[in-house]
Amino acid sequence: MTADPNRSFDMMPAGPTPAWIAADWGTSQLRLWVMDNSNQVLDRITSDRGMSRLGPQDYEPTLLGLLGDRLAPGSNSDVRAVPVICCGMAGSRQGWAEAPYATAPCPPPGIAEATRPLIQDKRLTVYLLPGIKTTDPADVMRGEETQIAGYLAQDSNQTGPQVICLPGTHSKWVKLDRGQVTSFSTFMTGEMFALLQGQSVLRHCVSEDGWDEKAFKQAVAKALSSPAAISAQLFRIRADALLSGQNAETGRARLSGLLIGAELAATRGYWSHQSVTILGTDALARCYETALSALGCKPRRVDAESLTLAGLCAAYDQLQKGQTE
Amino acid sequence: MTADPNRSFDMMPAGPTPAWIAADWGTSQLRLWVMDNSNQVLDRITSDRGMSRLGPQDYEPTLLGLLGDRLAPGSNSDVRAVPVICCGMAGSRQGWAEAPYATAPCPPPGIAEATRPLIQDKRLTVYLLPGIKTTDPADVMRGEETQIAGYLAQDSNQTGPQVICLPGTHSKWVKLDRGQVTSFSTFMTGEMFALLQGQSVLRHCVSEDGWDEKAFKQAVAKALSSPAAISAQLFRIRADALLSGQNAETGRARLSGLLIGAELAATRGYWSHQSVTILGTDALARCYETALSALGCKPRRVDAESLTLAGLCAAYDQLQKGQTE
Repeated sequence: MTADPNRSFDMMPAGPTPAWIAADWGTSQLRLWVMDNSNQVLDRITSDRGMSRLGPQDYEPTLLGLLGDRLAPGSNSDVRAVPVICCGMAGSRQGWAEAPYATAPCPPPGIAEATRPLIQDKRLTVYLLPGIKTTDPADVMRGEETQIAGYLAQDSNQTGPQVICLPGTHSKWVKLDRGQVTSFSTFMTGEMFALLQGQSVLRHCVSEDGWDEKAFKQAVAKALSSPAAISAQLFRIRADALLSGQNAETGRARLSGLLIGAELAATRGYWSHQSVTILGTDALARCYETALSALGCKPRRVDAESLTLAGLCAAYDQLQKGQTE
Repeated sequence: MTADPNRSFDMMPAGPTPAWIAADWGTSQLRLWVMDNSNQVLDRITSDRGMSRLGPQDYEPTLLGLLGDRLAPGSNSDVRAVPVICCGMAGSRQGWAEAPYATAPCPPPGIAEATRPLIQDKRLTVYLLPGIKTTDPADVMRGEETQIAGYLAQDSNQTGPQVICLPGTHSKWVKLDRGQVTSFSTFMTGEMFALLQGQSVLRHCVSEDGWDEKAFKQAVAKALSSPAAISAQLFRIRADALLSGQNAETGRARLSGLLIGAELAATRGYWSHQSVTILGTDALARCYETALSALGCKPRRVDAESLTLAGLCAAYDQLQKGQTE
């Protein structure tokens, strides 16, 4: 897939030339925001051309193809290069170019730490924001650090210690203090749920949707009270379906409750003495809220969708301030 | 697939007419043993026509097709019907016909508890052996009870309390006392390993073979000392591969150690005060032996392959003794 260089000559540009492009380039998906110079969104573009489908040479043509006539005509013209600020897996070793991890404790890495891949087209300058690692124990994040940057930018009053939880395929629990990520832990809870629900023997008794709130809470409590027994509890979902006709919605809620409960058993040190902010407002985030509330914790939920963009905007502001670079 | 009724007329039978047929009919595989009347194996047949590929009407033609000219010619002749004694998922509700679970505590169900599906061909009589269930907590086995019957038949001196472990896709821990199954617990350890190794984000850092014994033992110990932390440990396999180049054989051993360690954390009540017999001699059974030995338990391993057949032979002996039925 290559951009057609003639196309932009044939048509009027779709609008004003963007001031910059914000990009969340993940494993399976790419989200672009076309931005003006006061950080207002001119346009949104999504694509399934995530890292898993791309070699290093594919990123630039992908960007040009998607941005099309939003850029000034001509690929070598003497126009100002539009900055593209990008978080996520595009900056991994298997991505466009490696943006090496910053090491916690550290603030979310910003534009000064970004990697700039070589670009043929002079109309673009690309900044790949790094992720964060810890080495003992080993853990990594790439993409979440930009959500955290967005969260900190929106909430600059909160400078004391705090805990945030980012539910997802690989959920993260993060400790923050004075604008720094001090430590974090990753859990494969979301991926385990998807594999067990869709592909294990439990698929016959765990539905794709539907819910049973009581069964969910009971399963969370069971996992918390006896974390060692979780691996025995999983097969019981099937046994109860076989022996007492338990419905698949209850099975779904039990599976979710056991796995989230296992995560909460492992994160007591995060949530038991501190308030927790959940970055997310979807059904999964609400499950975490329900589970934590049942444990006496009063979590706060904030919209995570907007935080990635807020984090990328914070990086753009840094770029503007340091424009002499 | 249907047996060709003419085929057996055209050829000499492949050998003496069998006294009976032993069958282990599982979800994905079918194993048949063609037996003489002193329980010697005349022939072995394996097929991929497991329960998951068959509707109830497919079982009889499958058997006839595989047995072929080993049966006397003619499907309605006045010959003695050959008993087919069958354990495994063919006796489940989704199988050939349901052989309802016996409820523990109970001895492994025998020929008297078997379900006899309707058969068109008068040369066969089929006995489907039931599995065993417990209701509080809910758990089920189907197939393993026949291995246990074989184990008890071979080891009739051991009548006191004992614990056996059956590693596998869904491993089982079973308490026996005076020939009865008193309780048991099922773990999805093998299936979780396969899903995480083959289909999760860990597939990049967990090899399909190879091993690291030290890493395995460390992971078992880690899981035992802190079962709540297991779900955090899984992602660290990936983080260590990314950050310190840990090889995929070590990743494989760590994943196996964490999951088996989680199972052992949940089964302390089984192995901590009693000797354990592991039914199995393959690589997986050796992993359990290594892990239990490192915990100060001295497990004994016995060949599980032969036990299913021994259990089916025990059922045939019951049939012979009660031939008046």
